[in-house]
Amino acid sequence: MFPPNSVGLVKTEYFTFAHDEPFRLESGATLRPVTIAYETYGRLNADRSNAVLICHALSGGAHAAGYHRPEDPQPGWWDDCIGPGKAFDTNRFFVICSNVLGSCYGSSGPTSVDPATGKPYGLRFPVVTIGDMVNAQERLIDHLGIERLLCVAGGSMGGMQVLEWAAHHPQRVRAAIPIATTARHSPMLIAFSEVGRQAIYADPAWNNGDYYDNGRRPDAGLAVARMVGHITYLSEQSMHEKFGRRLRERERYGYEFQTEFEVESYLKYNGLKFTRRFDANSYLYITKAMDYFDLTQPHGSLAAAFANSAHVKFLVISFTSDWLYPSYHSKQLVSALTAVGADVTYLDIQSTWGHDAFLLEVDTMTKLLSSFMDQIAREAQVTPPD
Amino acid sequence: MFPPNSVGLVKTEYFTFAHDEPFRLESGATLRPVTIAYETYGRLNADRSNAVLICHALSGGAHAAGYHRPEDPQPGWWDDCIGPGKAFDTNRFFVICSNVLGSCYGSSGPTSVDPATGKPYGLRFPVVTIGDMVNAQERLIDHLGIERLLCVAGGSMGGMQVLEWAAHHPQRVRAAIPIATTARHSPMLIAFSEVGRQAIYADPAWNNGDYYDNGRRPDAGLAVARMVGHITYLSEQSMHEKFGRRLRERERYGYEFQTEFEVESYLKYNGLKFTRRFDANSYLYITKAMDYFDLTQPHGSLAAAFANSAHVKFLVISFTSDWLYPSYHSKQLVSALTAVGADVTYLDIQSTWGHDAFLLEVDTMTKLLSSFMDQIAREAQVTPPD
Repeated sequence: MFPPNSVGLVKTEYFTFAHDEPFRLESGATLRPVTIAYETYGRLNADRSNAVLICHALSGGAHAAGYHRPEDPQPGWWDDCIGPGKAFDTNRFFVICSNVLGSCYGSSGPTSVDPATGKPYGLRFPVVTIGDMVNAQERLIDHLGIERLLCVAGGSMGGMQVLEWAAHHPQRVRAAIPIATTARHSPMLIAFSEVGRQAIYADPAWNNGDYYDNGRRPDAGLAVARMVGHITYLSEQSMHEKFGRRLRERERYGYEFQTEFEVESYLKYNGLKFTRRFDANSYLYITKAMDYFDLTQPHGSLAAAFANSAHVKFLVISFTSDWLYPSYHSKQLVSALTAVGADVTYLDIQSTWGHDAFLLEVDTMTKLLSSFMDQIAREAQVTPPD
Repeated sequence: MFPPNSVGLVKTEYFTFAHDEPFRLESGATLRPVTIAYETYGRLNADRSNAVLICHALSGGAHAAGYHRPEDPQPGWWDDCIGPGKAFDTNRFFVICSNVLGSCYGSSGPTSVDPATGKPYGLRFPVVTIGDMVNAQERLIDHLGIERLLCVAGGSMGGMQVLEWAAHHPQRVRAAIPIATTARHSPMLIAFSEVGRQAIYADPAWNNGDYYDNGRRPDAGLAVARMVGHITYLSEQSMHEKFGRRLRERERYGYEFQTEFEVESYLKYNGLKFTRRFDANSYLYITKAMDYFDLTQPHGSLAAAFANSAHVKFLVISFTSDWLYPSYHSKQLVSALTAVGADVTYLDIQSTWGHDAFLLEVDTMTKLLSSFMDQIAREAQVTPPD
């Protein structure tokens, strides 16, 4: 029914905490209760030393591997790397992926019901940070009875969470794999985030975030935001390879304002598709969390942020054609980690796929991740699950 | 009153043609009549051999130098390079700049009145191409009694017009200066254009282009389009230098959806400012013209496009940090020009300013342009005006 190296049928689970004592956010605001949606693949071993936490990017969710229904056409978002015999080998490791705070895929966010009003929070949901997302993940890890994660891994915003774990919860992490990411969101990243947000604000249906009961959603604005995002995930070269200047279903220019180039069609299709699966307010909250991410603060240096992380083993990965999270960000990170004495393996992978490479360069990634996971499992003397 | 090297007070003039015989566009559609707004600086010499045509970019107009009113705070858009003693020295050259077809600064475009209805054209205005813009400029040059231009110069979309002149009207051009441009609009450029257009379409006030009498304009959509543009005109590095992660008028994060980073404030300000001076439909028409630009067609090669341009002298300029019109586009152009035997000087200028560099690297540009203009004027034995 499923490919032999698939984790097969999986189910999203929900952990709710802060029923009584509210969960305190970095802003000082509080949230009560908090729900975290998550999935797990593989089994925890006897001494609970084989847990791997996978962190997702902006538009992802807890469903990282396997299928929700037998007829699902698509598996989870990182199925290429998670499963029996894959890089995150579920025969050996207990793999966890949880949906971030602020998202719309089951964890508490602007679409959740505010117990104070009985209606969706909308913009009454407090602004959250990458730090808050990770603090909530920590509560889930506590709940699962895991003292120390063998590894935390993720790309893009997932990589920010990885760095947040390594910097601010170093005792709970043996190894960290930040991929195509940065320790400090750049002004260009903020600029692209803000344009996406402005596109949403500009949609009258957004209605200041209060649209859940209106029968109209800010789909037009959200679609534009997503189109901007899609451009930034590709490289100039991959666009040439993927689309060139080819026209769609026509031989010559139409001299009218229709979708005619293939690249236009791609953007429009993906913009529209995104509105069917994502929430505009969640887009605002999550991009804001990314914009706030800056591990150089409050100490003024990246090395200071990792002062207590010398024992963590790092595998840092960037991609040569990723202009959104350029390699030099990863190189600065590597310098800081090396300065504190951490054991760092760094790879700047030659790829034409731009930022998307972290999901597309499957063969290279599989080799790299597998050998790194092998090594840390051996060093930590991780026993197989029963 | 004005700086001593300014052309001083200038006035936009208007040339209207195709009163009877309609102007035929590349699409096959026709336009009647056609008005071209233009300005001139300096004087034509006795044998009319000292004319220089300056071509503007997406949001520019005919007002390239000098001041419209004594109290004008800003001179024309390329005043740094046009004036007595400047690169395009108005003591020696007769400098012309005309507004492109489709724009909203005086030349025929969607804001013009359609004689058939007595109302602004809106989307009834025919789609125009870079070729059409240049054909209309040629009518203006005829009208001014100029047989052959000493030079055509421009950056970005202005550079596309320069290349169009050199490729399709080679007998009327002695020299050409395409700056920060391409002979073939790339899929990434099309993608950014399309996102801007989608932002405009998404604005209900756009009303399918019919908004001139509605009292509401699609400012929100146009502002988002412009914000996207502004990001692409800068480089990652120039954003770091210009804004970094600095907050505006606050010390710490506000944890709310307000403009708080300086880069956000810059984008919002410029988006809003643009809506006060530009027309949303013109934005659609001009970006579409750029998207259609591809000199490799219909012959399938760039060298074929310049087969009759071997006598034209070229100064090709690109900027190392321009990721919107990357240097390799200019290098491909240079290869094609060299292949047909044209005399080409090429400079890839080291700059951190991204695409905006062509307006900002004043000292370098002045030196380069001055010495090139000197040389071609000497070679063409251009006499001074009376």
